[in-house]
Amino acid sequence: MINAAKRDIPQDVLEKSGLPLYEEVNPKLGPRETMALDERLSKKNKILPGLEEAIRQVGLKDGMTISFHHHFRDGEKIVNLVLDKIAEMGFKNISVAASSLSSVHEPMIEHIKNGVVTHIETSGLRGKLANAISHGILEDPVIFRSHGGRASAIKNGDLHIDVAFLGAASCDPYGNASGYTLDVEGDAACGSLGYAKVDAQYADKVVILTNNIVGYPNMPCAIPETQVDCIVEVESIGDPNKISSGATRFTKNPHDLLISQLAAKVIEASGYFKEGFSMQTGSGGASLAVTRFLRDMMIEKDIHASFALGGITSQIVSMHEEGLIGRILDVQSFDTVAAQSIKKNKYHCEIDANFYANPFDEGSALHQLDIVILSALEVDTDFNVNVLTGSDGVIRGAIGGHPDTAAGAALTILTAPLMRGRMPTVMKEVNTVVTPGSTIDVVVTDQGIAVNPRRPEIRERLLKARLPVTTIEELQQKAEKLAGVPEKLPFGEKVVALVTYRDGSVIDVVRNIED
Amino acid sequence: MINAAKRDIPQDVLEKSGLPLYEEVNPKLGPRETMALDERLSKKNKILPGLEEAIRQVGLKDGMTISFHHHFRDGEKIVNLVLDKIAEMGFKNISVAASSLSSVHEPMIEHIKNGVVTHIETSGLRGKLANAISHGILEDPVIFRSHGGRASAIKNGDLHIDVAFLGAASCDPYGNASGYTLDVEGDAACGSLGYAKVDAQYADKVVILTNNIVGYPNMPCAIPETQVDCIVEVESIGDPNKISSGATRFTKNPHDLLISQLAAKVIEASGYFKEGFSMQTGSGGASLAVTRFLRDMMIEKDIHASFALGGITSQIVSMHEEGLIGRILDVQSFDTVAAQSIKKNKYHCEIDANFYANPFDEGSALHQLDIVILSALEVDTDFNVNVLTGSDGVIRGAIGGHPDTAAGAALTILTAPLMRGRMPTVMKEVNTVVTPGSTIDVVVTDQGIAVNPRRPEIRERLLKARLPVTTIEELQQKAEKLAGVPEKLPFGEKVVALVTYRDGSVIDVVRNIED
Repeated sequence: MINAAKRDIPQDVLEKSGLPLYEEVNPKLGPRETMALDERLSKKNKILPGLEEAIRQVGLKDGMTISFHHHFRDGEKIVNLVLDKIAEMGFKNISVAASSLSSVHEPMIEHIKNGVVTHIETSGLRGKLANAISHGILEDPVIFRSHGGRASAIKNGDLHIDVAFLGAASCDPYGNASGYTLDVEGDAACGSLGYAKVDAQYADKVVILTNNIVGYPNMPCAIPETQVDCIVEVESIGDPNKISSGATRFTKNPHDLLISQLAAKVIEASGYFKEGFSMQTGSGGASLAVTRFLRDMMIEKDIHASFALGGITSQIVSMHEEGLIGRILDVQSFDTVAAQSIKKNKYHCEIDANFYANPFDEGSALHQLDIVILSALEVDTDFNVNVLTGSDGVIRGAIGGHPDTAAGAALTILTAPLMRGRMPTVMKEVNTVVTPGSTIDVVVTDQGIAVNPRRPEIRERLLKARLPVTTIEELQQKAEKLAGVPEKLPFGEKVVALVTYRDGSVIDVVRNIED
Repeated sequence: MINAAKRDIPQDVLEKSGLPLYEEVNPKLGPRETMALDERLSKKNKILPGLEEAIRQVGLKDGMTISFHHHFRDGEKIVNLVLDKIAEMGFKNISVAASSLSSVHEPMIEHIKNGVVTHIETSGLRGKLANAISHGILEDPVIFRSHGGRASAIKNGDLHIDVAFLGAASCDPYGNASGYTLDVEGDAACGSLGYAKVDAQYADKVVILTNNIVGYPNMPCAIPETQVDCIVEVESIGDPNKISSGATRFTKNPHDLLISQLAAKVIEASGYFKEGFSMQTGSGGASLAVTRFLRDMMIEKDIHASFALGGITSQIVSMHEEGLIGRILDVQSFDTVAAQSIKKNKYHCEIDANFYANPFDEGSALHQLDIVILSALEVDTDFNVNVLTGSDGVIRGAIGGHPDTAAGAALTILTAPLMRGRMPTVMKEVNTVVTPGSTIDVVVTDQGIAVNPRRPEIRERLLKARLPVTTIEELQQKAEKLAGVPEKLPFGEKVVALVTYRDGSVIDVVRNIED
């Protein structure tokens, strides 16, 4: 057989190979392009004139699952923008699978009422949206997933994303997208796109929304163009100054600082504080603040950390720049300093949520953690932790990487005040179990330290260091003495949310609150 | 139903969700680990005591396809090592799908004779192995693929890899692997692992072979641990001093330099030489040497390239460091300078072969190329190019990215001497069509320049610049006058290789040579 290059290809050989014959124009390849780069990029690119065109082009349909990232936290602007447009276009019965949601997403309430959004999967919910859901506005229960649980659910297909709408601080005309703008200081950056990277990798269709279309190639990048279908330019994708609000704010509360200092002493005495150790500080004032005391101890004892993991703060960046921490593995930048550092510090590495926290991968980074310091809304005498529902039973938090890192780290330290106002933090039974007590080793409060009986060797070490070790029961009793027996919360019968553990199993449910 | 956290999960809600109930120990998760990082890494890691254990653990079977990368080019040491072990272990009927093969792989001849290796897919073949295959040693025809064609075949499943054996210059105990060692100058680095990255991503099993196990985390890395099954320590994975041998050696041949200089003038006059242009120089002395003349022109006219793509040389690195080239997109480092630069130059970016050259992706980097300068063993009056078989009809080259970049670039310039010794380079019909003439725009020889009639505007521009423009027919006739009509080669009837185009179609076959 003679092909388009006028070569004789023996038919039997061709048939046996199963390969097609060369034709000069393969319609799947498209014609050869001879425009110069600047003209090519302006005429042939993935930029669409607006969000509506993008939604049409990716073929969104009623009943589909769309996803978002929450790297801008309370400054996030894409979710509302996209849902408003989807509602305007008349879509119904959409599942929203965000890496997390917060107070800023209050407008979603209307979309739920109108049947546009009928299902939510997220790590957290806060503010009026959370309140409405706790009061039963959504027929279908919300599925809460941890960061590691979500990543593995996306990877193994349990959570299938039809269309990911991902905000990027910069993007070139073909879709190489990033959480920051290279060579520009102080841009509207969120830093790492660690959660978004997983969505981009596994979603059927990916739409990048960006306020900043930059020249080709926008490299290095977080999301390569190979994963991007189209690009929409928008005025703003988020406010970086609101990243460091709420749970990631830097605390000045003396109570928090006291707890942090005590937690640092626990680390020092734990047996894990040695050259080359690894660490993570979770969100929450006291846990984040541990770094300042840890830093002094590291300098004093000439101890260096091999890596810091997870949500990254300016304190971690400073310690890295001082040479105290070798590598930063950043799945989420917790403030603007961290978001800017990732551009300039070679060993400040952007990692995705599977690399960070996939529960089924022994090699994922959190399985190499020595120490994690976490916070809690409630902890009970079984060491179970609630970071999701408030003392009124209403949803007001996020699972985040809490159960992931608690299970992954060799030493899990929980920091919490014994009381918040007049409400106890240590109690007989938490309202909602998010992180099982079997993965919590030490509870540090302003009224003493409790060590999980599963870790007698840690208890011994802390006692030896003359730290104020007590028991979880004593802490609980002390709290009860101050606050009285907590009243039963007005839970109804309706399940408004399922709380999944990092392996995707149901560890608890949240019931509706009746006013 | 009461779960292991003692929480009551309503059965109907659970069933409707389809999610499992939380159990304290999920066997798929493994037990919680409390060893400190150093102990964990030494006791729980992916390092196996030897290659044999790795081959057993990944479950290699007769008939499977194994893959390798060729980033060390003629200094490559993994292919022989692995095939020897596989032969020793008694496996048969193995398909070898390497990104390329070269002279150093001569020992494969024995494995073919013994039935260990029965099929080969590669970009190139050289030396005695190539000679043996040209003489019909292998029953099944070799399938030659271009770099872009191979990447897309792996991605779309046409080329399924059971086990990838990938050499890495550094690797941590969990498999974060790299083509260089961070913080070590002058290590045995190959630089970019651009081809290997695709294998790691899509192969069922991935074995990393490394001479350098480094501390965790080996980040940033080319291959993340999430893609790695096991690690084997070996004495050496390759000799970096042999990367820059043969086709990527820096030429001092005055003939080559003359052609290079002329090619630079073609670029200058082509209409594509303007601020922000993009470029690639293919392997082969004259094409690589174009950079030195281009550099002077860029400085003189104050023109900067937005990016340089592909196989990267020390010349490209220098121009980047001088500020003449904005980004380096490196799929393969062509010498030790490039291999070291990737460590220190922030905008020297490691890209994978799909990002580089996937033919079905309009956004892949080569589709943003303004200019590519390529070389040829033969070119014919239809502008078809042969880079695979020598003037004796024996296989002695590699497709590489030749057809990929020729099709992707806006301007494709071929550099070649009119004669090599007494053999013509420009002829009526090439022995083997690798790159179709429809994608070649300009042929630059020491005896004049021919422009493809498909590009009359380029011809006009070159004439206007008073460059020695002639026709491809005239060049062919001149060569024939000097060399006479080439004798017919002693080809047999057996097809020893299929040459595929970048879309996977058969563009030509190579027949056996009868001595």
